[in-house]
Amino acid sequence: MYSFDTHARVRYGETDQMGYLYYGNYALYYEVGRVELFRSLGMTYKALEEEHHIMMPVLSLQQRFVRPAFYDDLLTIRTTIRKMPEKTVTFHHEIFNEQKKLINGGSVRLAFVDTDTGKTVPAPPIFLDKIKSWFEEESK
Amino acid sequence: MYSFDTHARVRYGETDQMGYLYYGNYALYYEVGRVELFRSLGMTYKALEEEHHIMMPVLSLQQRFVRPAFYDDLLTIRTTIRKMPEKTVTFHHEIFNEQKKLINGGSVRLAFVDTDTGKTVPAPPIFLDKIKSWFEEESK
Amino acid sequence: MYSFDTHARVRYGETDQMGYLYYGNYALYYEVGRVELFRSLGMTYKALEEEHHIMMPVLSLQQRFVRPAFYDDLLTIRTTIRKMPEKTVTFHHEIFNEQKKLINGGSVRLAFVDTDTGKTVPAPPIFLDKIKSWFEEESK
Amino acid sequence: MYSFDTHARVRYGETDQMGYLYYGNYALYYEVGRVELFRSLGMTYKALEEEHHIMMPVLSLQQRFVRPAFYDDLLTIRTTIRKMPEKTVTFHHEIFNEQKKLINGGSVRLAFVDTDTGKTVPAPPIFLDKIKSWFEEESK
Repeated sequence: MYSFDTHARVRYGETDQMGYLYYGNYALYYEVGRVELFRSLGMTYKALEEEHHIMMPVLSLQQRFVRPAFYDDLLTIRTTIRKMPEKTVTFHHEIFNEQKKLINGGSVRLAFVDTDTGKTVPAPPIFLDKIKSWFEEESK
Repeated sequence: MYSFDTHARVRYGETDQMGYLYYGNYALYYEVGRVELFRSLGMTYKALEEEHHIMMPVLSLQQRFVRPAFYDDLLTIRTTIRKMPEKTVTFHHEIFNEQKKLINGGSVRLAFVDTDTGKTVPAPPIFLDKIKSWFEEESK
Repeated sequence: MYSFDTHARVRYGETDQMGYLYYGNYALYYEVGRVELFRSLGMTYKALEEEHHIMMPVLSLQQRFVRPAFYDDLLTIRTTIRKMPEKTVTFHHEIFNEQKKLINGGSVRLAFVDTDTGKTVPAPPIFLDKIKSWFEEESK
Repeated sequence: MYSFDTHARVRYGETDQMGYLYYGNYALYYEVGRVELFRSLGMTYKALEEEHHIMMPVLSLQQRFVRPAFYDDLLTIRTTIRKMPEKTVTFHHEIFNEQKKLINGGSVRLAFVDTDTGKTVPAPPIFLDKIKSWFEEESK
């Protein structure tokens, strides 16, 4: 298992007239969680696309909305990979408000696509090498 | 069952550098589907909030991304209520491209909240009255 | 002069907690205005990019916010080219609400860039040919 | 004059298929600049709305797009108040990329509205008191 926490503050333009963070904007926060998880591993999703020619389209998304998030809240986005990626990778996300209450939980499953051929490929070594130690430890 | 089709064209600002409609923007399309389903019934979500003091926060969202949608695609959003709403209502969505291929399918479950008290309430009569005939027919 | 009117309905996710269409989302409406102006001329911006290898990055934007737009308002976006494009093109936009009141006015200036070379180029003949009759008439 | 620098990283969902930060999303970055300038003064825009019942609708926006911003760029947003606010306040924004090159410059003018009466009011003392020392120094 590998988990990483990052933060994002709710922008005015991300709220709706209900005064809540709009439900569609959580997907952006999940993206921030994934991208910063990659960075925490010493790699970037940007380099994955540009240098390694792998892009990661989203296959599925699920979210539960537990409590509203409000304008200017500094949210904590906890992103976890629970299982070694194979053909796809699933990121689990939990978002907490400043009172450490869970406001949203969900997951995103993504594929790996070779941008040169347009074909799906297995999780690339560049990614697996960065995280495998976190999963080896568990199986000991 | 009650189902309604509406349309939305993919905006440049809704694409991402992969050249796809960004996965987070499908939630906006689901919203358009729900809102136009309400309008097709002779009511509006706006009036529900303003006149009937009912708001509908989202409880959960799930989506499968089957094919990409591209810039300027004129998408068909099919929104269906499969089951008479009670404490909550679930909208099922299917999005088709101009070739009538399914690109995305999913569902959104929403609650009903009295904006004066902030408490959840059952599906309001104003809404149930508009759709009940579609469900009575089926049970005959 | 060439002018075209199109329509867009304000989405819930485009409002903010002030209950207004968020100021940053007007740029999307300006985009819709430009794109539908192109379509009204018998061409598409999509084809300009894909077939003619011309992209149009924005050089400048200015907007005045006259009245708020609200959720579910069906807005009219009037887009006008006042002057024959040369090195750049300026689109003027006026947005009206359902009471035909002006809510926003502004303009966007865009360049033409050859996507193969990355260099700016003059307005392409494919575009000029479509609009020149509208400007010839005026100079008579 | 009072100036404050803050940072924001370009999200995937904020890019468009040109591979650039979409032009409409700069308004969100300007908002981040304003909000963090307020926070740097020891106040928050959130409290201005909630506790002091002042909201600040945007009157006008202008932007020049000098260079593109790309996915994952860590941008610096420099926000400056050049002139003591009176009936309105103008924020000047400059956005720099990681190479310290200017990518965008512009300004936003906002009004002050009493949320109880819906009427415009002059810049509130809570705000003026926080910044006046920065302007007194200059006039010495």
